[in-house]
Amino acid sequence: MIPEFVLELDKYDVLAHKRDEFNLPDGVIYLDGNSLGPLSKHTQQHLQQVVQSQWGTDLIKSWNTHQWIDLPSKVGEKIAPLIGAAPGQVICCDSISVNLFKLLSGALKINSERRVILSLKDNFPTDLYIAQGLSQLLGTDRCELKQVELPDLLDQLDDSVSVLLLTQVNFRTGDLLDIQAITQYAHEHGILVVWDLAHSAGALPLELDKHQVDFAVGCGYKYFNGGPGAPAFVYVNQRIQERIRQPLTGWMGHRAPFQFDNEYQPSKGVSHFLSGTPNILSLAGLDAAMDAFSGVDMGDIRNKSIALSELFLRLVSEAESLTNLECISPLDAQQRGSQLSFAHPQAHAICQALIAQDVVADFRAPNIVRFGFTPLYQRFADIWQAVKILNQVVSSERYLKAEFQQRQKVT
Amino acid sequence: MIPEFVLELDKYDVLAHKRDEFNLPDGVIYLDGNSLGPLSKHTQQHLQQVVQSQWGTDLIKSWNTHQWIDLPSKVGEKIAPLIGAAPGQVICCDSISVNLFKLLSGALKINSERRVILSLKDNFPTDLYIAQGLSQLLGTDRCELKQVELPDLLDQLDDSVSVLLLTQVNFRTGDLLDIQAITQYAHEHGILVVWDLAHSAGALPLELDKHQVDFAVGCGYKYFNGGPGAPAFVYVNQRIQERIRQPLTGWMGHRAPFQFDNEYQPSKGVSHFLSGTPNILSLAGLDAAMDAFSGVDMGDIRNKSIALSELFLRLVSEAESLTNLECISPLDAQQRGSQLSFAHPQAHAICQALIAQDVVADFRAPNIVRFGFTPLYQRFADIWQAVKILNQVVSSERYLKAEFQQRQKVT
Repeated sequence: MIPEFVLELDKYDVLAHKRDEFNLPDGVIYLDGNSLGPLSKHTQQHLQQVVQSQWGTDLIKSWNTHQWIDLPSKVGEKIAPLIGAAPGQVICCDSISVNLFKLLSGALKINSERRVILSLKDNFPTDLYIAQGLSQLLGTDRCELKQVELPDLLDQLDDSVSVLLLTQVNFRTGDLLDIQAITQYAHEHGILVVWDLAHSAGALPLELDKHQVDFAVGCGYKYFNGGPGAPAFVYVNQRIQERIRQPLTGWMGHRAPFQFDNEYQPSKGVSHFLSGTPNILSLAGLDAAMDAFSGVDMGDIRNKSIALSELFLRLVSEAESLTNLECISPLDAQQRGSQLSFAHPQAHAICQALIAQDVVADFRAPNIVRFGFTPLYQRFADIWQAVKILNQVVSSERYLKAEFQQRQKVT
Repeated sequence: MIPEFVLELDKYDVLAHKRDEFNLPDGVIYLDGNSLGPLSKHTQQHLQQVVQSQWGTDLIKSWNTHQWIDLPSKVGEKIAPLIGAAPGQVICCDSISVNLFKLLSGALKINSERRVILSLKDNFPTDLYIAQGLSQLLGTDRCELKQVELPDLLDQLDDSVSVLLLTQVNFRTGDLLDIQAITQYAHEHGILVVWDLAHSAGALPLELDKHQVDFAVGCGYKYFNGGPGAPAFVYVNQRIQERIRQPLTGWMGHRAPFQFDNEYQPSKGVSHFLSGTPNILSLAGLDAAMDAFSGVDMGDIRNKSIALSELFLRLVSEAESLTNLECISPLDAQQRGSQLSFAHPQAHAICQALIAQDVVADFRAPNIVRFGFTPLYQRFADIWQAVKILNQVVSSERYLKAEFQQRQKVT
């Protein structure tokens, strides 16, 4: 029996009507929208139309008649207001990894008398890997990645640092960094800042323009629900657009790609961050998915996200069997993103057992169970149900059975 | 009335049964499969299943249960036999532009005592642009693009050249280069060779392993019919895989991406050419589309392609009104790819008028009409019909009207 106060939370949820826009599988409580967002009804219809009618029937003409050629900027402009960006600064293409390579290369060229890219040791690895790849390409005399611990971050922001590369919300713990304060502090030391918004965009209110952010990237397939491997986005602040050049100079970033000149001329603004031919199917999925945010206030998203996670925390704290789940996310809701992570020696087994009971959480090596909160389609009742099942799983040690069964399958 | 000899050609076409596998729009004669291949019935069904069932229902689990994680190599292995590659050398990801950046960077590092990337002035521009972007990033002391004319190519292949970058089939003229001879000649001078197979893969028999090709890229959305902006493929010859490192070191190319280490360790073989999270929808389209090649002999494709284009040429030469169409493709079928290009001062208007009559050809600036031959779904009767309409368009000067109407629309 779901308690009355939980039902009341759903009753007064200003975003409750949004859930109907999604095609969620029956009986599944999905707490992994921060890994892969679900399919919206509109996205499903739109993709079918793009495949059958645009590709199938109109074929090559669709580049013009259905404006495929404009999709990267069209989708970018849908994302822009959700991250506090005025028009003309966001474009949608490639992956976060590839886009970070473009930004880091370009930013290093601007700040070329310095060679250090500074980041955190527990930043999401692909960002670190891309900086390492760039360093290996350019040589350490021109580019070196320095990885520090969070408490040492500000001390390390000195005149040797060219570019600061940070993910706002830590993928393991959910720790939330202060974009405004860190960007300002970095700027005071002449450092350019690249923010990875993979776990922020679509989950938190963002004010990139207001906070004078230089560059950002973000993910299309997590909170934006664009579909598996949907393209990423790039934000380049207007005041720096004329100074940055990126090296993946493919034809779609050319000023006049269909003139087929043999000399590259970057197109104006952020659009020279395009490289090769855009993935239309994946972009079309993201294009349609973004419509779920139409008319939605990111403040409401954040408020509900906090309410969902606070309910989760409260219910966990009330369950005796869950005392050995150690919350490694900040207990202060203002200090965390839209997730809660718990350490447990049997985290993997617990996660498998939850999934077997249709509560979809995420395991992160070595010992973390991660729950994502996605206000567009989660109900407070789902949270109550999820913790109930978590409680059952842990108290009955069902997870040991799930782990055993999985091992049997593997061997 | 279609002449008897044309109907006979269709009757004895060993690939005739393949056309049924495609969803071609009624009444359209599609001669632009070298820009965007059409939708196959299987691809349409598969994409619907991937969207609704894999993404919609199974959500995050699909990375394992539907092996999304293996798609880049699964699709690569479907492409491999069609380009003469043994397993373990082809992977499908990103765009041609991005993949060329990886290959050129990596090849330059191997041949690092040399700094010149040599290519042709009329190579497809994105390849040249990417080399220019790399040169600007590294500095001309480490990388310089040299563009030459085809007749000068062999003379320029000397000890100063690090990497030779060539597209096998010229996108404008259809000129076909000899991979075996050029690769061998380049190797004799210690030059690494990157072949762009955008207009070859799926259209011509290829023998990359046999011809000792070092590296290649190719397109998923032209002759392979993978859908608009489908991912490209990369081929890295086994003998050179352990020597090359590419700089776009995203997490999907890591040896153990889900260990989330903070130091990049490339995975073995060609799979470290993966960078960010793969576009599953676009990859799934290509995956399904490749099945149209199942059981198909590339020799049969080539034979029919030549027969289609020879018929086209013969019919054009027999039409008095078409004498002012200047064929700029080699008249010797062995010297050209799977296209015919014609120069005409009113090429753009002619192309528009053809499209208005449901004969889809391609305009290439400044004055070229390009017709692509795609044996999987074209009939000889289509070619006869296309030339008949071309003849009508040119002889009645209908194209002038089409051009006029288009200008009216624009203004």
